[in-house]
Amino acid sequence: MLAIDDDRILADLRTLAGFGKLGTGVDRTSFTEADMAARQWLCGRMAEAGLEAAIDGVGNVYGRTAGVRAAVLLGSHTDSVPGGGWLDGALGVIYGVEIARACRLARASATIGVDVVSFADEEGTFLPLLGSRSFCGELSDEELTGARNSAGAALSKRLADLGLGARPPARLDPSRYRAYLEAHIEQGPRLVSEGIDIGVVTGIVGVRRYRVAFRGRADHAGTTPMAMRRDAAFALFNFAVRLAERFRAAAGPDSVWNFGVVTVKPGAGNVVPSEAELVVEFRDQHEATIRRFEQELHAVEHEFDGAQGVSVAKNLIGSLPPAMMDADLRETLAAAADELAASRIAMPSGAGHDAMILARHIPSAMLFVPSVGGRSHDISEDTSEIDIRRGAHVFARAVELLLARFERQRGPNS
Amino acid sequence: MLAIDDDRILADLRTLAGFGKLGTGVDRTSFTEADMAARQWLCGRMAEAGLEAAIDGVGNVYGRTAGVRAAVLLGSHTDSVPGGGWLDGALGVIYGVEIARACRLARASATIGVDVVSFADEEGTFLPLLGSRSFCGELSDEELTGARNSAGAALSKRLADLGLGARPPARLDPSRYRAYLEAHIEQGPRLVSEGIDIGVVTGIVGVRRYRVAFRGRADHAGTTPMAMRRDAAFALFNFAVRLAERFRAAAGPDSVWNFGVVTVKPGAGNVVPSEAELVVEFRDQHEATIRRFEQELHAVEHEFDGAQGVSVAKNLIGSLPPAMMDADLRETLAAAADELAASRIAMPSGAGHDAMILARHIPSAMLFVPSVGGRSHDISEDTSEIDIRRGAHVFARAVELLLARFERQRGPNS
Repeated sequence: MLAIDDDRILADLRTLAGFGKLGTGVDRTSFTEADMAARQWLCGRMAEAGLEAAIDGVGNVYGRTAGVRAAVLLGSHTDSVPGGGWLDGALGVIYGVEIARACRLARASATIGVDVVSFADEEGTFLPLLGSRSFCGELSDEELTGARNSAGAALSKRLADLGLGARPPARLDPSRYRAYLEAHIEQGPRLVSEGIDIGVVTGIVGVRRYRVAFRGRADHAGTTPMAMRRDAAFALFNFAVRLAERFRAAAGPDSVWNFGVVTVKPGAGNVVPSEAELVVEFRDQHEATIRRFEQELHAVEHEFDGAQGVSVAKNLIGSLPPAMMDADLRETLAAAADELAASRIAMPSGAGHDAMILARHIPSAMLFVPSVGGRSHDISEDTSEIDIRRGAHVFARAVELLLARFERQRGPNS
Repeated sequence: MLAIDDDRILADLRTLAGFGKLGTGVDRTSFTEADMAARQWLCGRMAEAGLEAAIDGVGNVYGRTAGVRAAVLLGSHTDSVPGGGWLDGALGVIYGVEIARACRLARASATIGVDVVSFADEEGTFLPLLGSRSFCGELSDEELTGARNSAGAALSKRLADLGLGARPPARLDPSRYRAYLEAHIEQGPRLVSEGIDIGVVTGIVGVRRYRVAFRGRADHAGTTPMAMRRDAAFALFNFAVRLAERFRAAAGPDSVWNFGVVTVKPGAGNVVPSEAELVVEFRDQHEATIRRFEQELHAVEHEFDGAQGVSVAKNLIGSLPPAMMDADLRETLAAAADELAASRIAMPSGAGHDAMILARHIPSAMLFVPSVGGRSHDISEDTSEIDIRRGAHVFARAVELLLARFERQRGPNS
């Protein structure tokens, strides 16, 4: 069994959490001083673990095992949301560095090695999944040039100021990589509430986001009889209740939806609302289910448009397809958990991850460890030490099983 | 029949609309330069009409007929909301000045006269119904001292700067006044949509306003299963739909309600809403109906509080009791309309007016003329010339009938 040092993993995670420390969490949004200092430190840790490490033109920290003809790529990200948690992303990167170190020591003559990557700006301060999209060649020059953060600062200028702009971006070499594996905190309550150690991710859900606009008419709420009103907000309330009914009927076992943004204008107690807006988001790992949700939304829009003098119009504002995880890799993660007597469930990831980009190019899979209280994107995010250690051993064992299998598959002539 | 000059009424209304002119409307919020210039001009018009006129310590413009032992008070207000209409308030004041002039000429030896008032800050730039509340002795020194506008400016300083602070406020003399009559635009669509000339106001509705707060928990909308959510916004939607159902069942023929303010936090497409707020307002001219609405609100609050992990708590933020209009005065207004072959309906006022304050002290009544499209509190507010003229003649005839009746009631010995 691969000899990883889970004390070093915890120590490295704690050191990493010192960059941008904010209470029990971190504020390490992309390309801030704290984020770049963390990347420099990480680059040093990779080198110290025996990898050839460098920061590429978009900020990816990329460490490669020298002298091998193929590799398994392990990774995640080290940037955070504003006021985020210490493990979101960081966990998978530090697992990767420790496993790469252990593999290099244990398997010095191997022809298949372990590479590690920390992708830039997974959280989308400038551009969501920037690093993995760049790495996979999915990022156009226009997107890169046009990207700005919420304060209006240009990504290209920030990269130039950091001295990264002139460096070439690292690119995925499909002939080198057999698999991409990402360990991550669950960011939800399922493992914790069911008392399960490990989540083997079946797929990363697809997302659709629509803005639904309601247009009525502003009227004096004292002098306008109820029957003569064109109340945009009340139409929205009824619409949301009706849509949720139909979503419940159309849902698969893991479907989720959210009505997270609601605005009502003009927003005075004595004025009938003339305008209202609702952001409707839904997610499922099956594209067919997402299409059912879209049909339901369309039907309810049609049902409500024009009723009580209120027009209803929806507008697609975001779309990500589902990404299925590789079946063989999932089996390997499950087998490793079983060997180490860790309980496990198969579950979709409701959040997006770099693995959703990688999965379009090479076989990919993810492992989840429990999130205390299901919390994430907050400084209260945490995972117990025992779960961090257990997850590392399961993940390391899975990598070991994979490397052994890939070595066998290459055969004596390769 | 009292000889009023409706051309002069229109001319005066157009002159008054020149103060703070904004497109087809006016911006004449209380104690601005435009508002004070309008008051000075109005004071002059009252004097020219033969009244003893002055501006009092809170900005009321008050014109009295000299040499009479009793009077009928006619009035309304000349301040506006920001970007308001040219007739809201102004109509009733200018009707009053013209009727006072005509009465003085026609009834020089009468013992009962006509007084006119333009109350300050009816629209509540600093303090709603400031002028009429001050006039009726309903305003405490604390309220007057503490009042500020939305920009934080203190009313007391503004009054001092305008040289009004040292003047005594005019006070209602109950021994002088037999009645208060206020003409006003309807500010709603009923007269226009039913093709009716005159509204005889039965009462000014009472208003209750509640803030209802929903508290749930913020969660990642991708990773949190539907059954584990505590969604404050979805609770609000269901609450509003349910409450409206119960309000419909509890409503009288003229009850109205409005859910005009809706806020949802944190307000992101991918975060389950943790907090939501709804402002619930309802109005009726009968206190018993208002109490039924309060009971329904309380019942629905109780039904929803704690359901799906969301707490619900309501908080009273505004309350005005209904004000019934005097039955004899209403009959006189109706009789005047009938004499002049103006069609009429009895209807409540859904908006507040100075008459709701006066009605607590002396017999009071209101007459409405149609509002084009039901519009008000907007520069698009308007009333057709023919309706302005017709309203003036009906209102003048009603005053004439009242004066004659009061003279008879006083008898030869008084």
